[in-house]
Amino acid sequence: MYGSIELGGTKIRCAVFSEDGKIEEETRIETDKPYDNVKEIGKFFKTKEIKSLGVGAFGPLDTNKNSQTYGFVKNTPKKYWTNFDIRGELKKAVKVDLDFTSDVAASLIGEYYLGAGKKYRSALYITVGTGIGASYIQDGNILDGFGAPEMGHIKVDRIKGDKVKSVCQYHDDCLEGLASGPSIYNRTLCSGESLDISDQAFSYVATYLAQGLATYSYILRPEVIIMGGGVLNKEGMLDLVKTEFDRIKEFQINNYLDLPDTDYYIVLPDLGNEAGLYGGYLMAKNISEN
Amino acid sequence: MYGSIELGGTKIRCAVFSEDGKIEEETRIETDKPYDNVKEIGKFFKTKEIKSLGVGAFGPLDTNKNSQTYGFVKNTPKKYWTNFDIRGELKKAVKVDLDFTSDVAASLIGEYYLGAGKKYRSALYITVGTGIGASYIQDGNILDGFGAPEMGHIKVDRIKGDKVKSVCQYHDDCLEGLASGPSIYNRTLCSGESLDISDQAFSYVATYLAQGLATYSYILRPEVIIMGGGVLNKEGMLDLVKTEFDRIKEFQINNYLDLPDTDYYIVLPDLGNEAGLYGGYLMAKNISEN
Repeated sequence: MYGSIELGGTKIRCAVFSEDGKIEEETRIETDKPYDNVKEIGKFFKTKEIKSLGVGAFGPLDTNKNSQTYGFVKNTPKKYWTNFDIRGELKKAVKVDLDFTSDVAASLIGEYYLGAGKKYRSALYITVGTGIGASYIQDGNILDGFGAPEMGHIKVDRIKGDKVKSVCQYHDDCLEGLASGPSIYNRTLCSGESLDISDQAFSYVATYLAQGLATYSYILRPEVIIMGGGVLNKEGMLDLVKTEFDRIKEFQINNYLDLPDTDYYIVLPDLGNEAGLYGGYLMAKNISEN
Repeated sequence: MYGSIELGGTKIRCAVFSEDGKIEEETRIETDKPYDNVKEIGKFFKTKEIKSLGVGAFGPLDTNKNSQTYGFVKNTPKKYWTNFDIRGELKKAVKVDLDFTSDVAASLIGEYYLGAGKKYRSALYITVGTGIGASYIQDGNILDGFGAPEMGHIKVDRIKGDKVKSVCQYHDDCLEGLASGPSIYNRTLCSGESLDISDQAFSYVATYLAQGLATYSYILRPEVIIMGGGVLNKEGMLDLVKTEFDRIKEFQINNYLDLPDTDYYIVLPDLGNEAGLYGGYLMAKNISEN
């Protein structure tokens, strides 16, 4: 049996996987004070006889093995968590070997080996929710040279007429600031669920996301882009993004990149909300096998 | 002994390296018709008793091992070379095992193992000359998921007042179109060598390059960025780029990325014009040792 944790900013999911990758048991904990949370996690796994543990956590995380603070949460607006040694404290509480990565990288690992990315050598996973994060993998190697990428913060071109205040506290015109979930509320004062997909707010969001995907395509050239997160759960949202991407592909990229057909290139996750947990399972299994 | 080839759009350099990485002999050939060039290359290496060969070539190249046209030059404005099977024809002519990659990736390999990148886990190499190309490496793995990246073609923000026509035939506002060598001539009708570094053309170029480096930093997060190519040979050019990058770092990135000091982050190549040849040598040696 293997343990997997998806440690999010609002909730923590802990799961026990069988050897062959089935979820045997799962629990959810509200994210609160880190020491209390770790104690609860330790309690859950105590009786489970897991061989090892894989963790996908919110961040920013220090993923540099040579760093003094390897495995620590860095500066985060999330109260109490800045400088918390997630890796060290979980290891003490659960008492097995563990591997950890960012939440988005864990989802990518799940999809790359078991989901929408499994036919490919390389894949990009982008999650569009409260924030925007992305992770890239090639030949099984996650891109994280100097730490996890900050792909959600690239500059985009603000659309004339879109007067919304950026929801990113650092940047006025970054992708996360103009296309993450809260930007929809800021434009309409309505939740995304209550709005019709024809609302202009979704069209703005789709355009910025397509701009971002174009930039990622030039730089990373993934074979497939998997889009997850709350905003993509909106019925019709992926189609809007694909339509905007096709427009950019024709009129701005000018078909310069030898891109696959957009229906194959930009896709939803196969594993839905379980991608991160499966990623944790694969990381745990990988420890035991190596 | 190992063979190394730097196959550029205007000249081809062939070198013979000793086991311990010294250049023993070198020749230069003008790039012309591919079959004639390959014959000359074969003749040069015929008497050299090399164990294997590493090649860095202009492109775009098909670097996908599963492709029917693996090792071919793809669509190129370079006369006669489109669809030429560089890998296959060189193998026939030189009769040793060979490995090949793009010219910029070969330079990156040289710098990563023997030059300005050798202290780092990850590095980005960008060459600014007739065109702009870049290549990224992490833990020894070159980024080339779906083929070589096309990082030079990302969109940049045109500076108000810069009316130059883009020199890229595909894009009006891409980095290569506004910041490669020919853009300097197009703005001034002078060669870069004859101009003072205070000329506004260099300031424009530096600003666009700094914009590009910011985008690469968000997405790739390399530990070091090595800048080569003709435009960087201009005395004072690197300093201009660093000054512009510092400005963007403070006022647009808003110090969000935990970047190293710019003097360590943005550097010139250590191996100068030999980086590509050293890269070819390392690739050749790697074949023989594996």
